Amino acid sequence: MIRVAICAPSASLPRELAEQVQHVAAGYGDVELHFHDQCFAEEGHFAGPDEVRLAALVECANDTNYDAVWFARGGYGSNRIAEEAIARMGPAAQGKIWLGSSDGGYLLGALYKAGIGRPVHAPMPLDIKRDHGADAVEAVLSWLSGDTAQLEPNLDGRPTAAFNLMTLAMLSGTPLMPDLSGHVVMVEEVSEYLYAIDRLFFHVTANLPRSVLGLRLGRVSDIPENDRPFGMTAQQIARHWCERTGIPFLGEADIGHDAANRIVPFGVTDRDASLGLAGFTLGKPRSWQ
Amino acid sequence: MIRVAICAPSASLPRELAEQVQHVAAGYGDVELHFHDQCFAEEGHFAGPDEVRLAALVECANDTNYDAVWFARGGYGSNRIAEEAIARMGPAAQGKIWLGSSDGGYLLGALYKAGIGRPVHAPMPLDIKRDHGADAVEAVLSWLSGDTAQLEPNLDGRPTAAFNLMTLAMLSGTPLMPDLSGHVVMVEEVSEYLYAIDRLFFHVTANLPRSVLGLRLGRVSDIPENDRPFGMTAQQIARHWCERTGIPFLGEADIGHDAANRIVPFGVTDRDASLGLAGFTLGKPRSWQ
Repeated sequence: MIRVAICAPSASLPRELAEQVQHVAAGYGDVELHFHDQCFAEEGHFAGPDEVRLAALVECANDTNYDAVWFARGGYGSNRIAEEAIARMGPAAQGKIWLGSSDGGYLLGALYKAGIGRPVHAPMPLDIKRDHGADAVEAVLSWLSGDTAQLEPNLDGRPTAAFNLMTLAMLSGTPLMPDLSGHVVMVEEVSEYLYAIDRLFFHVTANLPRSVLGLRLGRVSDIPENDRPFGMTAQQIARHWCERTGIPFLGEADIGHDAANRIVPFGVTDRDASLGLAGFTLGKPRSWQ
Repeated sequence: MIRVAICAPSASLPRELAEQVQHVAAGYGDVELHFHDQCFAEEGHFAGPDEVRLAALVECANDTNYDAVWFARGGYGSNRIAEEAIARMGPAAQGKIWLGSSDGGYLLGALYKAGIGRPVHAPMPLDIKRDHGADAVEAVLSWLSGDTAQLEPNLDGRPTAAFNLMTLAMLSGTPLMPDLSGHVVMVEEVSEYLYAIDRLFFHVTANLPRSVLGLRLGRVSDIPENDRPFGMTAQQIARHWCERTGIPFLGEADIGHDAANRIVPFGVTDRDASLGLAGFTLGKPRSWQ
């Protein structure tokens, strides 16, 4: 049995979506989901003030009853509490899996930098509201139940990390940014103009360490229409900046802001290991980088 | 007589706007404007392909007939050619004033880093299309004619630089980024959600050197309405991140994406010097930082 605590370090989750997720989870006997009440808090843009989101995250992190912490959704805000949260995490946080994506990438990055537990890029509870959203939630539940087929198909045994492109751009140079030397980096984006994608690639490729193993491009979806065509596709943009900065462009990644977003454990994935998490045992401090 | 070459390192300028600018300039006998034909080129998002924009910029930079180079407009793209342009600039570029803002900030930053001429945050020819847009163009022409009243009113003799917030965020950590240690930094923004403003301040305050003298906030305009209120104003956001990172918040700056955008020479401004440019003589290499 894997017990999963769900909190909302960024924006608020509608209560009815939590119920829908629980309904799906009822079909997975090996996984138990606990939605922290803070998921439903609201203050301005966020799921409660910084202190409230921080307290809930730290509570989930340090509670020995849980094996994993799942971020309820993105929507902006986890960067505001990530550094302080890491500072307050105790031994129980070490053996946990951390699940999320999009804005949750600030936390995944900071946890990876701190070497706390195993950060995993994955769909989130809010994804239930998408077309075929139950598939996204089932992918996580199925993976937690031992189905390694849910892992991103291009994971090749080399250290890997996956981010929303904007999140990675904003992480760069901050105290939350992990060292991605010797890593394959996967990025995806949603709802950004192509000129903004180009600008983000300029920034990200200049800021990644020169020893990065390469970049993979996930889906770039819901691109708004501009007053004029940009003149390059998202993949042409990625190739352009990789070429300019000497970063190998490795092709596509099966991640994105959609129900088909696949699971990418940070670090090394070994499909023959439990959950694909090489060197990691749930509930136990370990080394895996 | 100050002779100004105008080129478009980012997006294209409509020809009729150039005519309107020339019409205004006819009232300023001490200033002569030359629009490079490249201003009107178009390819996809840009005022011509990278090579065409690069060639025009380098041509203006190295032409001894001109005392200043004015960027026709922003709109994204100068970051794609800035590094190569700097590398191709010869002695004639050293004695020039460089005028622009918004996306032009990539070039102003790169020129400042390279110590080439005097970069100046200023309105641009495209601003003629704004409400009271002639005022913006007149501010530049009047300043070039010797009117130091057009300088941003908070310039206090300490080294200063002014940027669009997004531009500064994307510059950070790239080869174009100047060292802003010991500088007052002014920022302004347009058409970004408040959550994006918060995200940019997180990034920028973490990336600025700890020895920055302080931050001033220009106008943050045309903020799109989100599905929920953010809960803080732009100034509260700026204060929040300054406080968290130990950067003094110095108050407002009279800059923005509007016709009242004022002039901010990079480096030290001395209102008693010609054009306010302490230690700078047009057409002559000098040290001014």
